[in-house]
Amino acid sequence: MLPANRLWLSEAALGMLQSLRYYCQETPRKTRICEAISNLDVGTKIKVQGWVRSVRPQKENLFLHVNDGSSLQSLQVVASSELNHRLLTFGSAVEISGSLVTSPSRKQDVELQADQIDVVGECNPIKEKHGLEYIRQFPHLRCKTNVFSSLLRIRSEATTAIQQYFKEKGFIQVHTPVLTSNDCEGAGELFQVEPAGQEKNQDEEGHQHFFSVPAYLTVSGQLHLEVTAGAFPGVYTFGPTFRAENSQSRRHLAEFYMVEAEISFTQSLEDLMKVMEDLFRSTTEHLLSQCPEDVALYHKHVITYTEAINILNSSSKKFAFKTDWGSDLQTEHEKYLVKHCGDVPLFVTDYPYALKPFYTRDNQDQPLHTAAAVDLLVPGVGEMCGGSLREERLDLLKTRLAQAGLDETYGWYLDLRRFGSVPHGGFGMGFERYLQCVLGVDNIKDVIPFPRYSHSCLL
Amino acid sequence: MLPANRLWLSEAALGMLQSLRYYCQETPRKTRICEAISNLDVGTKIKVQGWVRSVRPQKENLFLHVNDGSSLQSLQVVASSELNHRLLTFGSAVEISGSLVTSPSRKQDVELQADQIDVVGECNPIKEKHGLEYIRQFPHLRCKTNVFSSLLRIRSEATTAIQQYFKEKGFIQVHTPVLTSNDCEGAGELFQVEPAGQEKNQDEEGHQHFFSVPAYLTVSGQLHLEVTAGAFPGVYTFGPTFRAENSQSRRHLAEFYMVEAEISFTQSLEDLMKVMEDLFRSTTEHLLSQCPEDVALYHKHVITYTEAINILNSSSKKFAFKTDWGSDLQTEHEKYLVKHCGDVPLFVTDYPYALKPFYTRDNQDQPLHTAAAVDLLVPGVGEMCGGSLREERLDLLKTRLAQAGLDETYGWYLDLRRFGSVPHGGFGMGFERYLQCVLGVDNIKDVIPFPRYSHSCLL
Repeated sequence: MLPANRLWLSEAALGMLQSLRYYCQETPRKTRICEAISNLDVGTKIKVQGWVRSVRPQKENLFLHVNDGSSLQSLQVVASSELNHRLLTFGSAVEISGSLVTSPSRKQDVELQADQIDVVGECNPIKEKHGLEYIRQFPHLRCKTNVFSSLLRIRSEATTAIQQYFKEKGFIQVHTPVLTSNDCEGAGELFQVEPAGQEKNQDEEGHQHFFSVPAYLTVSGQLHLEVTAGAFPGVYTFGPTFRAENSQSRRHLAEFYMVEAEISFTQSLEDLMKVMEDLFRSTTEHLLSQCPEDVALYHKHVITYTEAINILNSSSKKFAFKTDWGSDLQTEHEKYLVKHCGDVPLFVTDYPYALKPFYTRDNQDQPLHTAAAVDLLVPGVGEMCGGSLREERLDLLKTRLAQAGLDETYGWYLDLRRFGSVPHGGFGMGFERYLQCVLGVDNIKDVIPFPRYSHSCLL
Repeated sequence: MLPANRLWLSEAALGMLQSLRYYCQETPRKTRICEAISNLDVGTKIKVQGWVRSVRPQKENLFLHVNDGSSLQSLQVVASSELNHRLLTFGSAVEISGSLVTSPSRKQDVELQADQIDVVGECNPIKEKHGLEYIRQFPHLRCKTNVFSSLLRIRSEATTAIQQYFKEKGFIQVHTPVLTSNDCEGAGELFQVEPAGQEKNQDEEGHQHFFSVPAYLTVSGQLHLEVTAGAFPGVYTFGPTFRAENSQSRRHLAEFYMVEAEISFTQSLEDLMKVMEDLFRSTTEHLLSQCPEDVALYHKHVITYTEAINILNSSSKKFAFKTDWGSDLQTEHEKYLVKHCGDVPLFVTDYPYALKPFYTRDNQDQPLHTAAAVDLLVPGVGEMCGGSLREERLDLLKTRLAQAGLDETYGWYLDLRRFGSVPHGGFGMGFERYLQCVLGVDNIKDVIPFPRYSHSCLL
């Protein structure tokens, strides 16, 4: 069925092997390379499938390294140097049957002595080593590199770890919608959505929108989570989020993944910080479970916004942005604060009320006037999580929305406070920022399979 | 801190209880209702938090049912009838401390004898019972109903089960993008995306698009999955998918969730059907693990498209749509076939080549000329999964794309066949269709938290 290019060993050797195989009643067992290298199958016949990572013809033997994506490690394959290896190039897809044996070399525990090698997919000539920036241009091929296939395995594991964490804590996962008719916190630049080819007519001649109202891509699932937090102890969402920011920075994507959680019956930022910290810790422990090193990341500091401003103002460093009480913390400030506190994760709490969105709980601590909000800043990345207690007091919420002229738009949100509202709070964690932090990856585009940003939407 | 409305028991009773609590060195332990009703804590002091589902004042006692979303079951709470229960209405949020005791009634194993009840969130008057259609109008309140909070728990569990299944089988979860510059299979009506407020200028005066090219919401992650299948044994994605279909039917949503998988080194539809079946079985078993009934759904049938056409043509039933060989199967046909085969899940394989997208593997069985595609039809729902082997032969793929005038657009897809391509196949499963099938829910809008369809994007 396949246009396979069979590369046989010498007929005699093969005949011998085949009768041997018959004699032993042994058919090669299809094995993942991660299992093969774990050394349990030594002495058995196996069959592996994967992609060639290197070819070294030597006098007597031909050495291949084959990777199947199940592990960063490749399997060393030893074949007769008589083998026609014209098609065995870097990147070609192969099926190999043979005996798994203890390797005479110290470099690996086991190797596969090939009986038969089939090339099932040839590969055009390709250079083996490239920088991250170069391979980013070829999103359809970059998962064939070691560094990017590792990233995809880690992303997948981190996703599992996050879901396991919340499941163990009794949270319900909610699929908050991507399409929304509200712009949430007015936090970012919005993408608008209409059926293709219909945008013009609708806007100019007053035709109906597809959804009867303008629809946007979500910038946060928080408000939808708050809806569901009205019936559960804890809820979370983990999915794509969008910002139409015209930015080419190493820190921004137009489509990125966010973990967001809401916890009911919560009355303190400490409760929220506990969940943020536990989530970070348990996810990272899961990722590092194979890895004995402890991580410095596990220490942490907590300061208030007011303390942060004092630290910035007593520094001799000149900042580009203002550091008056009431100004928002900029990336330069966040990085300085993290350094100042010993390069460990840093919670900053109780930001100025005026800086925070309408749903943030008023601390009622005039004349300062702060809100019960908290950010988690991490080394190398800056802000990774942001959370707050949500204002559960109907009168305060009503006044604030009315002042902003938003009381009609958010009538349904006020409703939530009229039907068995509970004190609650929540936070969001940028999943790519998390991966950057844990892996020390500089550019956010290198921790997502298909990065989207202004002027780039490849594939 | 909270505007809590404390409803005390008689001072004397409370004094006694407080000294008792002191004596026992016992502070009420915060307990989820699912744990409380599991009967392990009888005799201990606990504190529960939740929402009132019913209030029955009787002569001596006041009976409440309280639910916290951790389970469908509510906890019966018994308080003194002297309690001022004006604020204890259906839907109000409460914190209750008391002793968990064996219930004298047969209706439940345990009940909570309340020492203290705090109303933390009042609830406006609300009717207790409503139909699914009525509550659909209030997406911000419907999770407070039994039926919809059950649905959210089941959706969350099913999500976990699907991810566990793939993890156990060694699949990597890939976050395929929502934003895409290709329209995949040209399968559905597309949504187009631009920054809000910029659509008009860009299209008329030739201004640049945000991404330099037109960008759409994904109708399928398959092509992106195929990219990653070039480096892993198996990959899957589970996320939102979009169709701008102007349909109000009970079967369609504009935003829905899809599970899609690609399996490398796969050469037969049987391999694909095995994964589809296993996924369905293991997810459903996980969901039903508390439930002893076996499900008839576990039987199944396999027929070819050609056999299906023969069945339809030898039926005495009049169909609205054509049943010639070469016509696509319509919902009426699918439902008839499922019934005809005994109302069990039905795989239909080997559809006409001309009906299938460019990437479907040619069976080269002229004069019939079919393609290696398979659909899984299920009772009550119709098509739930669709899959195919993907054409791995470069020359066949090139010819077909050229015939469709798509060879330039899909240059990158042809590239995949030049760099270590492997025979592979995959499928997609509509997550909402799956939930409809398992739960017997008639309208797809009732199995998703925030349904989006034409003329409706509430919140």
